[in-house]
Amino acid sequence: MSQKLELTELRSRIVDRLNNLTKPVGSLGYLEEIALKMGLIQERVIPELPRDKRVYVFVSDHGVTAKGVSAYPKEVTYQMVLNFLNGGAAINVFSRHVGADVYVVDSGVDGDFNIEHPKFIGAKVNYGTRDFTEGPAMTREEAERCIELGRGIAKRAISEGADLLAIGDMGIGNTTTATAIACAMGFDIDEILDIGTPLDAEGLKRKREAVLMALKVNRPDPNDPIDILTKVGGYCIGQMAGFILEAFEQKIPVVIDGFPTTAGLLIAWKMNPKVLDYVFAGHRSKVKGHGVILNKLGLRPILDLDMRLGEGTGAVLAMTIIEAAIKMIREMATFESAGVSKGTDQI
Amino acid sequence: MSQKLELTELRSRIVDRLNNLTKPVGSLGYLEEIALKMGLIQERVIPELPRDKRVYVFVSDHGVTAKGVSAYPKEVTYQMVLNFLNGGAAINVFSRHVGADVYVVDSGVDGDFNIEHPKFIGAKVNYGTRDFTEGPAMTREEAERCIELGRGIAKRAISEGADLLAIGDMGIGNTTTATAIACAMGFDIDEILDIGTPLDAEGLKRKREAVLMALKVNRPDPNDPIDILTKVGGYCIGQMAGFILEAFEQKIPVVIDGFPTTAGLLIAWKMNPKVLDYVFAGHRSKVKGHGVILNKLGLRPILDLDMRLGEGTGAVLAMTIIEAAIKMIREMATFESAGVSKGTDQI
Repeated sequence: MSQKLELTELRSRIVDRLNNLTKPVGSLGYLEEIALKMGLIQERVIPELPRDKRVYVFVSDHGVTAKGVSAYPKEVTYQMVLNFLNGGAAINVFSRHVGADVYVVDSGVDGDFNIEHPKFIGAKVNYGTRDFTEGPAMTREEAERCIELGRGIAKRAISEGADLLAIGDMGIGNTTTATAIACAMGFDIDEILDIGTPLDAEGLKRKREAVLMALKVNRPDPNDPIDILTKVGGYCIGQMAGFILEAFEQKIPVVIDGFPTTAGLLIAWKMNPKVLDYVFAGHRSKVKGHGVILNKLGLRPILDLDMRLGEGTGAVLAMTIIEAAIKMIREMATFESAGVSKGTDQI
Repeated sequence: MSQKLELTELRSRIVDRLNNLTKPVGSLGYLEEIALKMGLIQERVIPELPRDKRVYVFVSDHGVTAKGVSAYPKEVTYQMVLNFLNGGAAINVFSRHVGADVYVVDSGVDGDFNIEHPKFIGAKVNYGTRDFTEGPAMTREEAERCIELGRGIAKRAISEGADLLAIGDMGIGNTTTATAIACAMGFDIDEILDIGTPLDAEGLKRKREAVLMALKVNRPDPNDPIDILTKVGGYCIGQMAGFILEAFEQKIPVVIDGFPTTAGLLIAWKMNPKVLDYVFAGHRSKVKGHGVILNKLGLRPILDLDMRLGEGTGAVLAMTIIEAAIKMIREMATFESAGVSKGTDQI
């Protein structure tokens, strides 16, 4: 009760501050909501700017690629890890642009990395999931291990000082896995299904059939997120769920990216719905199901640029808008301090 | 003919480059279109990053405020100029965030500024327009002077090195003027009319009546943009039109902001439709008519955050997304350079 009152009081003080900045009430729209949410997360009327922004790109292979659900060969997953570590991928470019560091997590790539790189995190659960059209993607123990590994990665990030986190996903087949997870939770496949990489009509049909087969063969329990993860999930997605849960418990905000990261959020949300208070939706992906799920979760995307790449690209670009919102409430003059007359809406 | 061919060749080479970056074709969505447009503007396959970003905030008073069309008193226009110059307004905060300089133009504020400030530009045409519900807002000579002054401001900016420009507008009553301009060009008032500052239903009714009266009393010629500017325009809006025309002729891109800046673009576009090739729409304002006009012009907004403040706030925030798009094409690895396999969509 007392905590509840404090939250109400904090919210009211933040809103007062926003309404006294030299602008018409509400005229900075969603930026004001972002500043409010960040104030509530940090438990301050005037939130601090992040000092250590990071994106963690979770990478794994998906056995379902055997069913021809992507325009790309499976080995691209492995190759892209090297591209991330060499700084040549889109996520590297955008992270440099916004001042975030890129960490690359091998959640379950089908191949070994003999790499010493300060931003490479080996957290391989297995060499890719099994093809979930023929049985569970992983064992329940593996699913639980994903959650723990993801938690551990967030724990270490936060202990090192990270105060604004983003997550990204890479892995050929990841949108097929994400679709299966969403459908296992009750979303209608025809509202969700879309291409991830450019896929022709035949390919999209194979993707649809693979998801339906996965649900039919495995019958995941819609109320047991670990069962869903076990049967139709992916190692990357389970680790992202654990990462979000840990960040929530440590009160550090996480910016999610596109469709697969949102599947990770769905698992975390089923385990603890309160995580949403610490999550920002970086963007709305062009993948059809993404906006549907964000709506259901009540998360408004910050950017809407028809991106469908993943890797965390939408999430890190959104970080600069989040920072702009924080600077707005920190740096703008108030009507009093600037000697500007208030309008009638202020009374 | 030869120039046309060159443009086709340039476009094709930019698209090839975009399609060879390590990402599925088209997966960076609107960012790819922005990079393409910037390449065409700069006439380079790989565009340069801007080195001198500036926003010009055009400020003037609007005589129609006498009809009670805003929630704010008229003197706020004058007060906000001081706030801009003191660095306390939203436009200052966001410009610092993206590394742009803020220039403040007195296009026609009803009051004198005895100010020596390196970013203040005195270009006052008059002490506010006349109330256009009772006759023309300004003389035709004043309207032509607005265009010339706006051209001169852009010319100087570009001669000083500015290579990415944004425009913003401030002035109590400016959305009423912008509405009148749009309606004079044939937009339906009921698709356009909205509050600028928070205004009650009675206020919005007064605004609607003021616009209809302005059109009835003045009968602006829909095919003569200078006549429209004369009869139902504003000094700030005329100067923005001139600014856009000059930037176009010098091949420098301009990012527009919300509804009043878009009215400035409408005037410029009526004078030369080709200006659109050098204009980016920074955002879609929450003001209802803004999106309607952008659609008509075929300009896609970069941001969509329910902002309705003006000042150039949406335009400067969009600059950081434009820079991200340029960095994408400049810095991303290609499939060849990164040793990543191409998907079937690449064939």
